[in-house]
Amino acid sequence: MASRSRRRGAELVAALHAAVLAELEEAGLGRLTMEGVARRAGTAKTTLYRRWATPGALLLEAIGAAYPVEEPSPAADDLRGDLIRALELLLEWSRHPSARAVQAILTERHRYPELTAGLQEVFDGAGSRFTATVLRHYARLGHLDPAALTPVVEDLGEALVLKYGIDTGSEPGPDRLAEIVDQAILPAVRAGRVPTGPESE
Amino acid sequence: MASRSRRRGAELVAALHAAVLAELEEAGLGRLTMEGVARRAGTAKTTLYRRWATPGALLLEAIGAAYPVEEPSPAADDLRGDLIRALELLLEWSRHPSARAVQAILTERHRYPELTAGLQEVFDGAGSRFTATVLRHYARLGHLDPAALTPVVEDLGEALVLKYGIDTGSEPGPDRLAEIVDQAILPAVRAGRVPTGPESE
Repeated sequence: MASRSRRRGAELVAALHAAVLAELEEAGLGRLTMEGVARRAGTAKTTLYRRWATPGALLLEAIGAAYPVEEPSPAADDLRGDLIRALELLLEWSRHPSARAVQAILTERHRYPELTAGLQEVFDGAGSRFTATVLRHYARLGHLDPAALTPVVEDLGEALVLKYGIDTGSEPGPDRLAEIVDQAILPAVRAGRVPTGPESE
Repeated sequence: MASRSRRRGAELVAALHAAVLAELEEAGLGRLTMEGVARRAGTAKTTLYRRWATPGALLLEAIGAAYPVEEPSPAADDLRGDLIRALELLLEWSRHPSARAVQAILTERHRYPELTAGLQEVFDGAGSRFTATVLRHYARLGHLDPAALTPVVEDLGEALVLKYGIDTGSEPGPDRLAEIVDQAILPAVRAGRVPTGPESE
């Protein structure tokens, strides 16, 4: 049986990721230290410094490790279903401690510009926003006009899910997720297929 | 010249509204008291209790007094322009201290269910959401299908402006407001005019 000090490799890293997120939740960004993380993880501070220069670097790695990447259904042609699954993935992620870590950084973005920039790299690496990977996949297949995938349109899913949470204090249910896809995302990406306005007449 | 104690009517009420918002900003919801508001406004606590039973009731009235109501251009037929103006009105409101008061209540909604319910009444009285009054006006004129004005669609403007602020820490500029209208709101309300999908064939 491995003792606590014998953990290594992926197991140790996972334990340190969990420790930095738990420490953040309790201490807050302003009091996040390597000491605190090491104590919580039952490891030596030197072990941490061997790999990460700052607690912020460890925190960003923990956020990145928990950040999901959408996978559009490989064979199926199911834009609507894939968008709903992307929003379900967003809800699932939002329950993970790393989602609260993201919120903590963004709330104090002006105090932590380096963490905020690091966060942006994590998001970019994972495909920028929830639903964006799916939308770009269908644009590559020729089912959507790539020009329709603007920052506003790629923001629709996250914005409406977030707003629902702020307004109601709860998660949107399956019906609301489907409404977001049917009433906001699909009309927006389809509007891009057929130009509207005077130019098209 | 009126002394401080001689203020009355609308002037006194406006001073008390400003005082409760300033007191909230400094003390926070958990420490908002009639004493604090009275001291800040330079008036007697009894003056406050004559009109409001709790500091929360005064706070809600202050939020309501600052909450704008959209006015669609009366003669012009300018849905796009009226929607952009509705979003500009939202930005203007978001700079007022009462917007931070709304945020403070919603952040602690589980601790203050009565304030949260009172807030909802304020919003409903003002036409529910920014852009909703404009959209309903054009639906009444027969320019939009009223069935397209769902909670998701009426939420688009506020959701996308809010999300932009969270992501960037700044306000959307005029270009972004126009993109929100052109790429999200207009496609969503127009999708309602002409049914899409198999049923329409």
